[in-house]
Amino acid sequence: MSEPRPSGSPRPAFLFDLDGTLVDSVYQHVMAWREALVACGIELSVWRVHRRIGMSGGLFLNALQREIGRSLSQQTLTELTERHMQGYLRRAGGVVTLPGARQLLAALAANGTRYAIATSGTRQVAWPALEMLAVGEAVPVVTRDMVERAKPDPDLFLAAAQRLGVEPSAAFVVGDSVWDLLAAQRAGALGIGLLSGGYGPEELQAAGAYRVYQDPADLLEHLEEVGVRQAS
Amino acid sequence: MSEPRPSGSPRPAFLFDLDGTLVDSVYQHVMAWREALVACGIELSVWRVHRRIGMSGGLFLNALQREIGRSLSQQTLTELTERHMQGYLRRAGGVVTLPGARQLLAALAANGTRYAIATSGTRQVAWPALEMLAVGEAVPVVTRDMVERAKPDPDLFLAAAQRLGVEPSAAFVVGDSVWDLLAAQRAGALGIGLLSGGYGPEELQAAGAYRVYQDPADLLEHLEEVGVRQAS
Repeated sequence: MSEPRPSGSPRPAFLFDLDGTLVDSVYQHVMAWREALVACGIELSVWRVHRRIGMSGGLFLNALQREIGRSLSQQTLTELTERHMQGYLRRAGGVVTLPGARQLLAALAANGTRYAIATSGTRQVAWPALEMLAVGEAVPVVTRDMVERAKPDPDLFLAAAQRLGVEPSAAFVVGDSVWDLLAAQRAGALGIGLLSGGYGPEELQAAGAYRVYQDPADLLEHLEEVGVRQAS
Repeated sequence: MSEPRPSGSPRPAFLFDLDGTLVDSVYQHVMAWREALVACGIELSVWRVHRRIGMSGGLFLNALQREIGRSLSQQTLTELTERHMQGYLRRAGGVVTLPGARQLLAALAANGTRYAIATSGTRQVAWPALEMLAVGEAVPVVTRDMVERAKPDPDLFLAAAQRLGVEPSAAFVVGDSVWDLLAAQRAGALGIGLLSGGYGPEELQAAGAYRVYQDPADLLEHLEEVGVRQAS
């Protein structure tokens, strides 16, 4: 009679960021913010906007006020947020899913690997992307309006793990920005970086990425590297 | 009677890239290329377009054909180039000079430090940017149409050094993309990287940057680090 096998590590679950990770929307967000800033008379170089994408809108606006060296009125802050949303939705027709995104989600589902989506965007902004990805009802989606604090705070990923019923330490966070990877560390999860949001690999590694891939298609090709045994 | 002082190193000259280095135009170029590609039925993720900005248009199109895995007809290649130019010029009204760009050029001029501008763009595309920078007649400007090969070939910077009458080895190339820094190495010049085109510092260093600054304003604040003694 053989002894029972030791129970081993739990099967990994995946917590996905949305913009720049599953859909190719980062640059549309960048240009929408840039347009909103110009409309409010605020000059900020476009690359500095790019580096803030994916972080909480509130933190973005705080950092902005420090960078431009003056406080903005509540009215201006509200106007910026509103103009960004309208500018993004106007550009959303040009947003497509990233290569391999749908296939990756389908492969995980076929394999019984659980996943959720956690985004710093609001439900309204995330909606067209979720539609394009054909994300089913069974997949937990945590948006900005459902938690107190967005990335780099860990709340979004913690809520997503909870909705899946997994410990964060048994989950991989997949994201394109340093904010995702910093939030992953704070949530106690391993981070996987994707280059599809425009960051370089060294920056993602420096923010804690356990592995870096080009985009969802590249991650799908290397799923074994993160311990997913695919159904053959 | 004192001996003559040894003649020492020549005073440095500067060879500036234009887009992303002196003017904040990289993201407008990215979106114009993206729009041109979509119009021609070609899907390429936006971050991949971003990473090609600043390289020769011909090399960009060669790399594109390899990435999408098929050849494009001469008619399509011409259409892409034309649509990119029109799309960029349509967005050029939103392009501004980068912080410190005019002040940096003025400080160099006041100091008797010679500089030239060398861009992978055509004269037509470069023109609005040169106007905004108030670049005088005395400053050599080398555009794509004046040399056989653009970056990462060294021709643009070699021609710019020649127009200044300096050896490339006595010049700094200032650029925001890895293509500038690779071209600098091939020209035998030291490269200075700026983050204002959206690359991370590690990538610019890996491509050979001798120093990396945030933008022209940051370079201006640290001119002594590259051996420029400012008039006091």
